[in-house]
Parts: sequence; structure tokens; C-alpha cells
Amino acid sequence: MKAVRLTKKGGSLNLNDEPLPKLGPQQVLVRVHAASLNFRDQAALHDQYGGSVKENVVPLSDGAGEVVTIGPDVTRVKVGDRVTANCAVHWISGRYLPEFQSSSIGMTIDGMLADHVLLHENALVHLPAYLSYTEAASLPCAAVSAWSALHVATPLQPGQTVLIQGTGGVAMFGLQIARIFGARVLAITSSDKKAEKLKTMGAEAVVNYRAVPDWHHEILRLTDGKGVDKVIDIAGEATIVKSAASTRIGGEIGLVGFVSGFGGGLPPIDILSRSLTIAGIAIGPRTSFEALLAAMATSQVRPVIDRVFPFAEYREAYRLLESGNFVGKIVIDVAH
Amino acid sequence: MKAVRLTKKGGSLNLNDEPLPKLGPQQVLVRVHAASLNFRDQAALHDQYGGSVKENVVPLSDGAGEVVTIGPDVTRVKVGDRVTANCAVHWISGRYLPEFQSSSIGMTIDGMLADHVLLHENALVHLPAYLSYTEAASLPCAAVSAWSALHVATPLQPGQTVLIQGTGGVAMFGLQIARIFGARVLAITSSDKKAEKLKTMGAEAVVNYRAVPDWHHEILRLTDGKGVDKVIDIAGEATIVKSAASTRIGGEIGLVGFVSGFGGGLPPIDILSRSLTIAGIAIGPRTSFEALLAAMATSQVRPVIDRVFPFAEYREAYRLLESGNFVGKIVIDVAH
Amino acid sequence: MKAVRLTKKGGSLNLNDEPLPKLGPQQVLVRVHAASLNFRDQAALHDQYGGSVKENVVPLSDGAGEVVTIGPDVTRVKVGDRVTANCAVHWISGRYLPEFQSSSIGMTIDGMLADHVLLHENALVHLPAYLSYTEAASLPCAAVSAWSALHVATPLQPGQTVLIQGTGGVAMFGLQIARIFGARVLAITSSDKKAEKLKTMGAEAVVNYRAVPDWHHEILRLTDGKGVDKVIDIAGEATIVKSAASTRIGGEIGLVGFVSGFGGGLPPIDILSRSLTIAGIAIGPRTSFEALLAAMATSQVRPVIDRVFPFAEYREAYRLLESGNFVGKIVIDVAH
Amino acid sequence: MKAVRLTKKGGSLNLNDEPLPKLGPQQVLVRVHAASLNFRDQAALHDQYGGSVKENVVPLSDGAGEVVTIGPDVTRVKVGDRVTANCAVHWISGRYLPEFQSSSIGMTIDGMLADHVLLHENALVHLPAYLSYTEAASLPCAAVSAWSALHVATPLQPGQTVLIQGTGGVAMFGLQIARIFGARVLAITSSDKKAEKLKTMGAEAVVNYRAVPDWHHEILRLTDGKGVDKVIDIAGEATIVKSAASTRIGGEIGLVGFVSGFGGGLPPIDILSRSLTIAGIAIGPRTSFEALLAAMATSQVRPVIDRVFPFAEYREAYRLLESGNFVGKIVIDVAH
Repeated sequence: MKAVRLTKKGGSLNLNDEPLPKLGPQQVLVRVHAASLNFRDQAALHDQYGGSVKENVVPLSDGAGEVVTIGPDVTRVKVGDRVTANCAVHWISGRYLPEFQSSSIGMTIDGMLADHVLLHENALVHLPAYLSYTEAASLPCAAVSAWSALHVATPLQPGQTVLIQGTGGVAMFGLQIARIFGARVLAITSSDKKAEKLKTMGAEAVVNYRAVPDWHHEILRLTDGKGVDKVIDIAGEATIVKSAASTRIGGEIGLVGFVSGFGGGLPPIDILSRSLTIAGIAIGPRTSFEALLAAMATSQVRPVIDRVFPFAEYREAYRLLESGNFVGKIVIDVAH
Repeated sequence: MKAVRLTKKGGSLNLNDEPLPKLGPQQVLVRVHAASLNFRDQAALHDQYGGSVKENVVPLSDGAGEVVTIGPDVTRVKVGDRVTANCAVHWISGRYLPEFQSSSIGMTIDGMLADHVLLHENALVHLPAYLSYTEAASLPCAAVSAWSALHVATPLQPGQTVLIQGTGGVAMFGLQIARIFGARVLAITSSDKKAEKLKTMGAEAVVNYRAVPDWHHEILRLTDGKGVDKVIDIAGEATIVKSAASTRIGGEIGLVGFVSGFGGGLPPIDILSRSLTIAGIAIGPRTSFEALLAAMATSQVRPVIDRVFPFAEYREAYRLLESGNFVGKIVIDVAH
Repeated sequence: MKAVRLTKKGGSLNLNDEPLPKLGPQQVLVRVHAASLNFRDQAALHDQYGGSVKENVVPLSDGAGEVVTIGPDVTRVKVGDRVTANCAVHWISGRYLPEFQSSSIGMTIDGMLADHVLLHENALVHLPAYLSYTEAASLPCAAVSAWSALHVATPLQPGQTVLIQGTGGVAMFGLQIARIFGARVLAITSSDKKAEKLKTMGAEAVVNYRAVPDWHHEILRLTDGKGVDKVIDIAGEATIVKSAASTRIGGEIGLVGFVSGFGGGLPPIDILSRSLTIAGIAIGPRTSFEALLAAMATSQVRPVIDRVFPFAEYREAYRLLESGNFVGKIVIDVAH
Repeated sequence: MKAVRLTKKGGSLNLNDEPLPKLGPQQVLVRVHAASLNFRDQAALHDQYGGSVKENVVPLSDGAGEVVTIGPDVTRVKVGDRVTANCAVHWISGRYLPEFQSSSIGMTIDGMLADHVLLHENALVHLPAYLSYTEAASLPCAAVSAWSALHVATPLQPGQTVLIQGTGGVAMFGLQIARIFGARVLAITSSDKKAEKLKTMGAEAVVNYRAVPDWHHEILRLTDGKGVDKVIDIAGEATIVKSAASTRIGGEIGLVGFVSGFGGGLPPIDILSRSLTIAGIAIGPRTSFEALLAAMATSQVRPVIDRVFPFAEYREAYRLLESGNFVGKIVIDVAH
């Protein structure tokens, strides 16, 4: 099999020819057709996870493909099934546990930037027929994170108002999920062109945060002074204070990213005075992924994909990720 | 009736002789026997709530007494019942709503620093026989806040580890509630004398934060490097960053106070990297108060009361509150 | 004001001319424009609630109208507001409590079959602009019950499958709510004509239970042998065993009615072997009603109304209810 | 290794000498020291699970022992650890899923009636130091079921009232768990001698259901006519109707067993009129087992064990189970 491996010392990626792995009990060999990149893959490449990435790992948590071989005692899939995988292999349902870190695809166990991947069947998720491998490969990290961020303390409901930030993968999936639920979406972004794209996809109002640095005032105005029910905060340092100021009393913020840096700070009084609930999102369990796919299938929603690279150009894919010049997801077609 | 009223402009408290109020439907007149002070009563006196305190209000949310008259359609209490009241009159159960602010005892409606108080029956809570009026008066704000702070996203459970801060009302009740549930309590405080008091009451280990400014390292050490399950954060500005660092992956922080100021800031990466859930606590619903009383009654737990003042010395009670030199609650014996 | 009152002994309804009631604190006088009937109003008329209905009550929980006068301390509504009311006046949020029975509109306090109704502001719900009074009057009992029945242990989610029974108010609202959420709806009914109506409204498949008495086999077949995620059981005695057999392992049943009688019985092994959760639905809290209205407004969903009677023909309205020959709701236009 | 295997056709148990199994990824070999019997093991022996028990399985879900070998990629345990196992291997957290049936210890995969057992590390639970292997082996099925049955819709809380039935394993653990939480326990049983045992263990009142067939009236009387907060229903057919009548409005019933048969029936009106929530219990997730152990450790609670048999007398252990003449748990000392 062909597999790219990540050497952390030096941050280099190298393509190797390797024998196919041997299957143990409940293990499944998947022929990967497509894989996708997330902001965290860039952080992994630059060794920003404090050593928690396995040396020489095959990177990328997100991929989709076809089951080619199953080990003993496998019951959830059969050869030929079209599948993707949940980022945390054994996180099937319920709340996050530290132990799930030790089987995190593309981080602590070998991931999707290879033409085959070996996974415990607990991770596998069946694809609805209408989704291509390329589309499915874009979902595991970003779409499940968006789902979790919209279900912090209470379920998302039709008629609620959701704030999303930017046009990256999590933001776009957040918008799409909110629309499937019949929720109203407000957004902030950095350019009028991106604002147009967001409106086309169903955002009711978009604030250009370059033109309106105090965008939280605008979000309050758009909600009759009350604030939104739920925020997916993606930038972290640069946004959290204004995110909190944009949330209604008793509302919720799902913290997904640290795109703008590791600093900043939210004064506790801002949480207290609005009775907010704020949660750090660790992607999500497989049952959320399955619920997400069922929800998407009801209205045949398709992921927003910026560009698909052939396998040989995986370094270019990483470079595009690093540039920030994309809308939605970057995919690698591993099969070609 | 005798009632103290708070004039915000000037922050003055004055005792008045007034006619007893007339009862409307579902209203209950309670002869107040005791009232207690909370940090927020000091903030109300100094007009730190941005105008949300009613001009000329009878202050204090916390009190206990005897039902003397009931209006039409009252079904939950009868004359002679020993009762206390939930701070938010109509918050019976479920999540906090902004509308509850408009019937907040001692803030937006007349409170307990009077020998009689008129309340809608929705607010009333029956006292267990073993609690005196003085003891019961110490509970509504601080003990219910502590209860809520220990139930942010998941219920408190036997065997969990809880971190409390200081020796004020919320901290002491947090300690007692945690012990009733069979949870393990760690604490931080400012003096070895207070540390002794905390240990006597059941804290397993206490860190003097003056002697050990990096007390979060010590909390981690006491939990095998994992961190505690739940934190009741009381100081806000001065503690929140170390509180987050003391919490286990997936753990919870209930933010109750702003004793140390309105500033500070928690970097979003601290929430994200530990997958924390943090919630601002708006005291709690009446059903939590009732659950708390049932829990306390199982082991006949009694509140820690620092000092009881006669009604005439209510200004001295406020002064002691302001000094910070007390452990547990300050009570005013309104009946004498 | 004109008000119909119910004398239980004898089960008679009589129209009276009465003085308008006086308003106490937090009370609101509403000019009723429309009221609607539910199965439970028929049960109340025939004294089937074991004496819990107030003698001489103004019946009907469901109505909508305009605020004409407000008492002291009202903050949630103003004169001129278009409102409806939650059936249990003080059940704002959270789980059901026995105390809510003592302020149940049209049962223990005066209800909507009158041109004016006096209510505590806790009960009031603002109407979205697109709904008429006639439409809004049809919602409180049936639509909120359907909402609650779809949220027994977990929230309703897009992509789930829901089973509804018949074409009464709760069933029709259940169908509409499920469709708003993007859920798939299966239904059973007694005639092919009704089946057509259900399909028109979005039911994916409908089983005629007269033609197919073992309809649960058909429901299993339609769900690949797994069973549905959620059932709204309305008939009780005649349906519960087959409802349980139609539910997936780990699924949920909301029990709303007893249309088919007070007998029957579900063997415990049927609950145990499928790990079901079954809950008796006590209508629901006001926040669910508000969430329902927000959800309906997203797609401008309108209630299904069978017929509107003028006030003078209220007895005819009760007779139609008793006949069972209707689809959706029966409304009385109280203003004409 | 020595292992007993169950041949369903004929219901025979036979001891075999077998080679030790080979370890795959994340698999752990445990030297079993003790195993225990549950009512469901008797049902499995008599083939009452409709073919869902694996032919030739090593029976018994409950056991405890020492880790002797670990396979590749194991991170949760190390050689020498004292462990027990959760009945459903991959049910770590969250709600029950049908897929967990395919790795159910002693039912669909080899279980504890052997001197060694091979398990995926997901199943393993560390033992607190104070518990012996014999004691720990008695917990997995019965104690976790009791925990789940007390957490059907809301968490168990101090001061609540719990009803347990009989003196079998689940009932005894239910009593002990309720006492750890500071809940009040009422019980029914068949003899005054067993009633004495229950009182010794902390039951506040015990009703002899032979002497008082309408025991639900007595339970209502003991709760001031309100009913208990939670019931663990164990007999099923013979108890469910009276269990429902013994539960407060809005209360909960956890259905655990079918000791008295597969018939009977609960009329839906009984669920509806008291707004009950009833759930069939599928034992529980590993995190509940861990929470249970943490809770037990706080007060060093020990399981009630009726008798310990040496391995060679495993048939006698089954016979005692079948006789019903025991209090608490029956254990087999597999190491001797």
C-alpha cells in the first residue's frame, strides 16, 4: 500500500510503499478513496500538540472508502460497504473521555493519507447513497464538530438563531446543519465576496468584521437586542469576547478552534452576567456522526468543497490549507 | 410593618414603618424571622448591577419565616407553615430565563429585610423540622448557587472530586453538599486557620493560596495529575485560569462569583484543550432548593453561621459583610 | 362578559352573563377570539377525571385572543398583544410537578369558553404574526402534547422515523412537527380516505389498521425490521402493545391519550426486551410551546382545522367532538 | 485453560481443557479469580433468549481477575492490574445501542466461567483496593442494572425515596446504592426473616407482600399518599401494576427483570394518569460501572454474597440459583 507518514522532528511528510497490515479481531481494512484536510492537520504537522501526535503516523482523520477485508468477529460492516470513520475510534456515544485520545485517527493511530487504512469496526459509519467518497471524506472532523457545537447543553431546535464565523469547514457545516434544523443563521466574515457565498447558502445576515469591528453590536441588533441562542466560535483568541457579548442570556457557545491564536481571554463576569454555558468541543461521538448523516440525507445536503487534489499533490493540498485562501473543504483524491 | 428600604442614589438604607400589604390571588404574607446577607447584597447597595435593582426596594433575597395570611387561590402553603423562598419567584424548574429577573426577591421585588414579606406562592419552600429560621434564612442564594454549580452539565455523584474556593457562604455550602453526596472535597483558602476549619468540615486537603500561589499544580498532584471533576469558582478574575488548569479533561466549572473583580480572562485554548464545560450560575430553580433541603435533611446538615445580628443592627451586618472577616453566613434576626 | 360554565353533576353546559373579573398582581385580562376542543374536554364533561375538575368551571384549555387589561407588576405582555396560553399556568420550564394541576386552564381554573379570560402572565405565549386567532387557538393542548411526546428521553432529530396514530389533533400536529424537523413519518389510520389526507401532509407511508390489524409487522417492514425511533401513542388500550412492537431497540413512546379505553396492558417483557422508554405525557411547559411556535414559524406551518363554529353553537362543537367524524381540530369562534 | 461451555441444545454445561487464546490488538488476557451468577444465566441455560446466545459459549458475564497478558496497542491496563469487566464490551458511555448485543460477555462472546478470559480493553474496569475478587465478581450485571434503574430520566438524589423488590442481587445493590446517595429505601419481600435482613441493611420500612397483597397501598401510606420517586421493578408480570400505583406523579420505574414471568400487563392509563417514565434496563455502560465503584468506595460498601462455590461445583451453583433460596449473590471461586 502507499502511505504518507509524518515525521514530527522536521515536520516532513513522505510517501512510502508498505505491506498491507494484518487484520486482528473486529478490525476492518478500508480502501481509501478520498481524504480531507482540517486546520488541526496543519497544527499536527507543525508539532503544536505537545507531543501527542504519534511519531511516524499516517496523518489525516478524515477519509472515506470501501471495505475490502474484514477480520474475525466483525459484525457492523461487510466487504464492499461504503464507509467513513469517526475521528475517535471508540467514542461511540455519550460524553468525551480522555482515553479516546489513544485511538484518534491520524493523530495517535494511522490515518487516511494512504490508499488503505486499518480500523476497529467501532469507528465505521455507513455512507448514504447520495454522497460521493469525496463528499463523505470532508465530514468527520469539521461537520461532527459543528454538530457538537450546536448541541452544547440543549438540542438545536427549529426557530433558534445560530452565529457562525468565517467560511472554513466547521462554519460551512454549522450553517448547513442549522438550516436543516430550520434554525436562522447569522454570520461574520472578512470579505463581501465571502458574505455573498454565505447568503447564497442560507445565512440570513452577514457582518463583515473588517468593516464592522464591533460586529457584536450588529448581531445584537439583528436579534432585537437579545443575542443568538448558539454560537460556534472558531477563531478563539480574536472572537471569544465578542461571541459572548453576542449570545442571549442563558445561551451557549461551542468552542471549536484556535485559528487566531492561543492567547486572549474571556473575563468570567461576561459568562456570569449572561448565564452562559461554554464548552470546548472534542469533535464528537459516532452516534452524532450518524445523526448528522441522517439529517443531511433528509434534504440531500452536500458539503462545500473548495478543491480536490490528486494523491501525488498532497503537499500542494497542505499548502492551500496553510494559505487560508479557500471556502469549505480541501480534499485529496487518494484513489488517483 | 417595619421594613428597611434601599435608596440607590447615595446607597443608603433606611428603616420605615409601613402598612401591611394587601394580598392578591396566590399571594402569601410571611412573618420574617431571619434574613441573611450575600456578596450580591453589597453589590446592590453600591449600585453595581447597572440599574437593575428597583429604586427603594426592601433588600435581601434570603429569609425564612412563618405564613401569617394567604390570599385567594393559594394551594401550596397554609397559615402557620414554616417557609423560606427561592430567590427567583417564578423559576420553579428547568433552565434559567431572562424573565425571572423581574421577580427577583430583594432586587426587583421587595425582599427580606423587613418583618413581613409578600410573595407569590410559587416562591415558597417548606422547611424541614430540624432547621431553625436562622439556619434556613442562610440558604436561598448561597446554598442553591452551590448546588447549581455542582450540576452544570452532569449530576454530582459519590466518589467525584470537587474543588471549592475560600470560606464564604457558597464555598461552605459547596463543601457540605459535596460531602452529603459522598464526593471528595479539595479546597483553597488564604490562611492556615481557615484551612483547619475546612478540614474539620470534611475537606480532604486544603491549599493555602497565599503560601502556594501556583495552587493548581497542587490540585493536579492531589488528583494523580488528572484534575478535579467539578469546580465552584467564586473569585472570578483571580482564580478562573487556575480553576481551568485544575479541572480534568471533560470536567465542569460553575462560575458563581466575581469577588476578586470584573476583569481577568480565560484563554479559549484552556477551555478547548481540556474539553471543559463552564457555566455562569444564576442561583437556581425552586426544585433544586427543595432537592437541596431533602439532601441536607438526610444527614441533618446545618449551615455554618458566623454571626447573628438583631434587626436594629442591620447596618453592622452589612459592615461585617464588607470587611470579609467571616466564615459562612451573616444572619439578621428580624424578629428581635 | 359571556361565559359558558360546566356543571359536572349532570354534565351540563350553560351560557351566563357575568361581570368582568378584577385583576390582581401579574394578572392579565384577555379578550378571547377563538377556543378549541380536545378529547379531554369531552372527558371533563362526562366527569371522567375523578373529581379533579372544578365545579362550575369555564371549560376549555385552548384559546387565543388579545390582551385588553393588565394588572399591577405585569412585565411579559402589554395591552394589544396577541396571545395564547399554556394549559398549565405556572409550568414554565422543566419537568412536570403535581402542583401544576391546581392551575390547569379549563379544568381547575376558568378557561377559554368565554369572551374574556383572566390569567397569570406566566401562562401567556405571544403569537407569531402569520397565525390567526383561530389557528393559534388550536395549539395549546394537542400541539404541545405532540411536541412533548416526540421529546421523551432524547430530542427529535432530522432523519429519525416517527409513528403517529389516527387523524386527531395530536396526530396531525405530531406529523407536522416531525416534518419540520426533517423526520420521516409513518402513520396508521382507519380509512383509505384518511390515509390519503395523511400522505398529502407528508406521511411517507400509511397503514390502514382495519385492513391490516397486525399493522406493527408492516411498520417493522417499512423500517427494515428495526422499528421506529419514536411513537406518539394516542389510543392507549387498543394500540400500546403494537406500538411497543413497532419501536426500535432503545426507542421511545410518548403516551398521550386513552381514546380507546382505560383497560389493556403492556407486558413488562415487551418494554424490557426492546429497552424502551415510555412516558405518560402531561401536555408540556410554556417553553416547549414557545419552541413549537418558533419551529412552526420557520416553515409557516398552519394547523389542520376541521370546522369553526360560532360561539352560540358551542354545543354542536361538543357533539362533533363526540362523533369522532373530524380531521384535525374543532374550533369555536368566541368573538362572533 | 479450563473453561465450561454451554451447549444450548440440551442445556448442558461441560468443562473443557483448552489452549489459551492468542491476543489481537487491544485485547487483554485476564486470569479469572471469581465469577458470579445472575438470573439471566439461568435463562440462557434454558435457551429463553430466542437464539441470541452463542452456541458453545463460555457462560457468565460477571467475573473479576488479574491481567496476565496484553496484546498490541493496549493502553488502559497493564499486566498485574486487578480488573472486572462491563457486560457489554463496547458500551463505554451514552445510551444503549443494538450493536452492543454482539459483544455481550457470556452471551455472544466467551465469558467468565473459565480460568482465563480474553477481552477487548474497552470492557475493563479497575477494582478499588478494598474489594476482593469475590466481591468484585458479584457486581457487573446486577449492581450496574440497579444503578441504571435508579437513573432512568433524572439522577438519583439524596432525600429521594426508592422502592426495591425482594432480596436478589439487583434489589440488594439497589438498596446499597440508594443508601450511599442518602436516599430513603422502602422494600417489599416474601418473608419476615428477609424483611429483617433488609432493615439491617438500611431499608426504612419493609412490607411482606404475602401478608399484604395490596402492598402498594402501604407504600403510598409510607410516602404520605404521594408515592416513591423511583422503583426498581424486578418481578415484572407480578409487580408492575402495583409498582406503577406506588410511584409519585412524574416518578420513574426501571424495569430490570422478568422473574415472575413473561405475561401480565400495565394499562396505559396507569402510566398516563401519573405521568410516569418507565424504561427497560439493558444493564449499563462502563462509565456507570466506574461511577458505581467510586460511589461504593466512598463508604466501603461490600456486596452481599450468599455463598461461594469452588470451580468444580459450578453445577451446584446453578442449582442454588434455580432454587431461589438465597439472599444477594452466588459466586464461583474459579481459582480454586
